[in-house]
Amino acid sequence: MEGMIFARSRRLRRALAPAISMLFVSAAMPLGAQEPGKPPRTPAEIIAAAPAAAWLDIAPDDIMVMTLAGDRQVIIQLAPHFSKAHVASMRSLARAHWWDGTSVYRIQDNYVAQWGDVTEKKPLPQGVPPSLPEDYSQPARALPPVVPATSADAFAKVTGFLNGWPVAGDGASWWPAHCYGAVGAGRNLKPDAGSGAELYAVIGHAPRGLDRNIALVGRVIEGIAFLSSLPRGTGTMGFYGKEQQPTPIVSVRLASELPPAEQPHFQMFDTGSKSFAAYAERMRHRDDDFFTVAAEGADICSIRVPVRRTPTM
Amino acid sequence: MEGMIFARSRRLRRALAPAISMLFVSAAMPLGAQEPGKPPRTPAEIIAAAPAAAWLDIAPDDIMVMTLAGDRQVIIQLAPHFSKAHVASMRSLARAHWWDGTSVYRIQDNYVAQWGDVTEKKPLPQGVPPSLPEDYSQPARALPPVVPATSADAFAKVTGFLNGWPVAGDGASWWPAHCYGAVGAGRNLKPDAGSGAELYAVIGHAPRGLDRNIALVGRVIEGIAFLSSLPRGTGTMGFYGKEQQPTPIVSVRLASELPPAEQPHFQMFDTGSKSFAAYAERMRHRDDDFFTVAAEGADICSIRVPVRRTPTM
Repeated sequence: MEGMIFARSRRLRRALAPAISMLFVSAAMPLGAQEPGKPPRTPAEIIAAAPAAAWLDIAPDDIMVMTLAGDRQVIIQLAPHFSKAHVASMRSLARAHWWDGTSVYRIQDNYVAQWGDVTEKKPLPQGVPPSLPEDYSQPARALPPVVPATSADAFAKVTGFLNGWPVAGDGASWWPAHCYGAVGAGRNLKPDAGSGAELYAVIGHAPRGLDRNIALVGRVIEGIAFLSSLPRGTGTMGFYGKEQQPTPIVSVRLASELPPAEQPHFQMFDTGSKSFAAYAERMRHRDDDFFTVAAEGADICSIRVPVRRTPTM
Repeated sequence: MEGMIFARSRRLRRALAPAISMLFVSAAMPLGAQEPGKPPRTPAEIIAAAPAAAWLDIAPDDIMVMTLAGDRQVIIQLAPHFSKAHVASMRSLARAHWWDGTSVYRIQDNYVAQWGDVTEKKPLPQGVPPSLPEDYSQPARALPPVVPATSADAFAKVTGFLNGWPVAGDGASWWPAHCYGAVGAGRNLKPDAGSGAELYAVIGHAPRGLDRNIALVGRVIEGIAFLSSLPRGTGTMGFYGKEQQPTPIVSVRLASELPPAEQPHFQMFDTGSKSFAAYAERMRHRDDDFFTVAAEGADICSIRVPVRRTPTM
């Protein structure tokens, strides 16, 4: 039971309140509690009914915890398959505590939140080059298998899921897709490809035209709203104007650096599982309670890969 | 010259600052000033170079001005081709000042901002039915011609532009597409189709699965950031929790109701013009400065129809 996403009746909404909670709930995937004895109908019900084996642990070295002023935590999962040099530099920057004291200084509506060193004067730590090689796409043969998505795509020949990540491809190679929450590395004009010190997160409609033009290095898996709800910048392209206060970044740490008691643990849904296939199919053709007319399909960025805090035993 | 959307160098950004400004700038369409003697290269340059005839006036009866507390104005253009009964009720509600004193009470990240009467007790004005007929799509023969979009679409067989609006279709009929900023009418489960009193605006990745399932009644043409940057609701599906303060709506007026001196005037780009065709083509295959690898195309929601305040002579 769900669907009352635009319900006028609060009483009805309360009666339908879900018994489960998920961290990375898709916009088009309202929470749902399954009725006993009924097969799962909604995407959320399919995820809730999946076995524990359908969830994969995310390595602590792939998790970055960015703490903004006011104890607002934005948690980023690093992308392991692409732009490896950028990801390695990001780990070095985190270990050097380089982002501590920097800020979120650009919010462009329906586009990106950007952070890093607004002074442009902070030297990079030794071993972190100011510009890295382009590593935006990878030959298919060098990658784990991709689960193909069946819907047409406007931006690329093919799309699919590679170990929990939405990807697009041309048949010979794959690259990560700029979906909501995706994190990329700022750069100047080519040949510059950025260092990984200046980062942005997508806070609007997926700007897929950026695919293969920028190093996509990760995604926000918790706390994206701490970025997306910040005041928009009054300057050109959403950069903060002189009268605006950038949001201070208190610290950025790899989860693996934190004391064990403070380490957050996350799991992502196995995109190679049967449960994910069922979930993706339902996302493509919503026919549960609220929906009357099912779409022909859904784009790769609408089929959000569920991510959750690892349940405690 | 543009493209420095992720520039690290502020000096460079400043040197490239645009000479023109546009109201409804697409995320993927950074501002651009054309260099003298050069043909327009960026989407923004194509729009800036278009003749005055490529801009169409928006009727004052199709413009709703919603003023939030703190003098924040959100301006909505009503959709004239679909859900006509909903649009008519919205005009009645505005004329009755029904929304004055209501609130924005739901913000769900990457999905919608919703407003109306959170108490659910405010009686509708006479002549405004609590539920209206479904009028979500229209036969092609009953509509003006659609300019087809050439990129594949994940959600529908075909897409295009109908007099300034992004639409999707099945060959026989067309319906409006849930793009960023789209405004729709909340409803409970069918057969309820809503009244037009409870409204939402899309503030995330286009939830196109809602197409044909909800009455899409308009779009925000100015001030969407006043909705998209509001604090996210802590309750189920982004409804505000008890500890949160909904944002008061001071007034909602049709532009045609306002004293002439206070009426805002807007124009939208003519999607049937040659300039729009050139702009859309460039949006599908970005090859200007910042871009190295052009995409295969762009989805209908990425090709934003430019809207501006009518220039004063």
